[in-house]
Amino acid sequence: MKVLVIGAAGMVGRKLVSALLASGNVGGRAITGLALADVVDPQPPQATIPITTAAVDLSRPEVSAQLIADRPDLIFHLAAIVSGEAEADFEKGYRINLDGTRHLLEAIRLAGQGGSYRPRLVFTSSIAVFGEPLPEVIGDTHHHTPLTSYGTQKAICELLLSDYSRRGFVDGVGIRLPTIVVRPGKPNKAASGFFSGILREPLAGQEAVLPVADSVRHWFASPRAAVGYLVHAANIDTALLGHQRNLTMPGLAATVSEEIAALERVAGTSATALIKREPDQTIIDIVAGWPKAFEASRAQALGFRGDASFDEIIRIHIEDELGGTIG
Amino acid sequence: MKVLVIGAAGMVGRKLVSALLASGNVGGRAITGLALADVVDPQPPQATIPITTAAVDLSRPEVSAQLIADRPDLIFHLAAIVSGEAEADFEKGYRINLDGTRHLLEAIRLAGQGGSYRPRLVFTSSIAVFGEPLPEVIGDTHHHTPLTSYGTQKAICELLLSDYSRRGFVDGVGIRLPTIVVRPGKPNKAASGFFSGILREPLAGQEAVLPVADSVRHWFASPRAAVGYLVHAANIDTALLGHQRNLTMPGLAATVSEEIAALERVAGTSATALIKREPDQTIIDIVAGWPKAFEASRAQALGFRGDASFDEIIRIHIEDELGGTIG
Repeated sequence: MKVLVIGAAGMVGRKLVSALLASGNVGGRAITGLALADVVDPQPPQATIPITTAAVDLSRPEVSAQLIADRPDLIFHLAAIVSGEAEADFEKGYRINLDGTRHLLEAIRLAGQGGSYRPRLVFTSSIAVFGEPLPEVIGDTHHHTPLTSYGTQKAICELLLSDYSRRGFVDGVGIRLPTIVVRPGKPNKAASGFFSGILREPLAGQEAVLPVADSVRHWFASPRAAVGYLVHAANIDTALLGHQRNLTMPGLAATVSEEIAALERVAGTSATALIKREPDQTIIDIVAGWPKAFEASRAQALGFRGDASFDEIIRIHIEDELGGTIG
Repeated sequence: MKVLVIGAAGMVGRKLVSALLASGNVGGRAITGLALADVVDPQPPQATIPITTAAVDLSRPEVSAQLIADRPDLIFHLAAIVSGEAEADFEKGYRINLDGTRHLLEAIRLAGQGGSYRPRLVFTSSIAVFGEPLPEVIGDTHHHTPLTSYGTQKAICELLLSDYSRRGFVDGVGIRLPTIVVRPGKPNKAASGFFSGILREPLAGQEAVLPVADSVRHWFASPRAAVGYLVHAANIDTALLGHQRNLTMPGLAATVSEEIAALERVAGTSATALIKREPDQTIIDIVAGWPKAFEASRAQALGFRGDASFDEIIRIHIEDELGGTIG
């Protein structure tokens, strides 16, 4: 089967590509070709199968037609302008996150009209489709009232994915990713950055700032779990989804306290001592409106699996990013 | 204040225009000009204030810019391709119902960037944003999983309306209209047509076909109530809405039996005897997936009011369409 990954240069995209190449197949069907696209040219990994790469601007309608010219059987669409940028640049957010996805769906629809082309499309949505007021645990039938343009764009793409699937133009699965921890790399200015920072920096022997209370609860998945969701979404029998093509992934609900307790179990008090509590009212206010936990029972019934514990999330970071040992 | 009505030639649009002209003001502010637009040129009603009319194609971006060139303070956007047509013509439905509304929002956003233009925009959405599986009574936080392209387009426009309002580009209120009964005019092929037909035809001394069981329950409003929602939405303090700009209107839940019992009370058994039961499995299956009742408590708390009873709905039809007497 031919696989296309859009957003292949991002953190999750690169890990997905590695996992696909390591397994060599999806659901028992051998991968015979891999096409990687992103706004920057993705680094082609070492592989024995043909790999093509492309730097593309998804907001241009002809780009999607070119990307699917080779009729990929399976498409992962991970590309997006992130939340902060979509809020800062209204037009760019809509152009990439909404129009880009719609162009892709339209290209697939138009390509399929002459025959039987109807690829599986795995789309990464986000828990940003949910907004206050929220219950403590959000059920699978809770409405979507996003409080960012990014969340709005994701919610709209979910609706398009369902309608294009219902009409038979594409075989879509949308997965709402939890907040990813431990995000590798350098600290960034995302409001959610500290959830990773208070683990990543101490594990590397560096100080980290905690800007919110230890009691703050949120919804998490490791990068490895995120890749697992994507691959599972490529494999599931979509007849089981009915017309509801979008699923909240089964993350792990945890408080900052629980994060820190896990860090202590895995890396000791020398690590947790590096966490500096510096309350930041702006971040406190932003995070107060975020989801705390989900039922995610539909996704669990379909076999999606999250991380078992925060200890596991930390061990995955040590294995996948730190070569198995704490620095 | 200057008022623009888009979709002014439709059934609800015409009644809205009559109500606006009869009152002469909205929330105490005198209407100084009225602009009417639709895909066909709206009939200009008799009035003492200046009225302009325009036949327009909303799917063309420049049309929205022209419609708001005069900076209307209040815009009612009622125009849409109906459900059956949006299902039959996929591209046309998206072009008018999604792109048309987005062009309008964009025209307003771009017009406002140099100064303080931020009109009230009242948008008619639909209970078609909801799809199976549904609870017996649908709460205000139930998710939107439309089962038609029309419902998908309305759900997307709701999300856009909220985001454009949150960003301060427009002061939007979206109202999800119940099924309108008694719809005046001739029988049509809409699957919902019988809900009006079994009242309208007998009240005119003619036979009507009932294709579903008497036990079928659904959610209704009279045309007069629909106009009342629109005018109220133009008047409410939108600060009370927070960032959730869309509201399920408080309709009347009733079974077909209850409809018929009301008809008997108002027009006697000579009327109800004209209803012929001819089960139609296609319509039975379609209607089985429709909403039966809503809580609509947010809208009620904001002062929106539906019809008190089906007897009232029938009397409104007799007063407004039949000159006060049964033919």
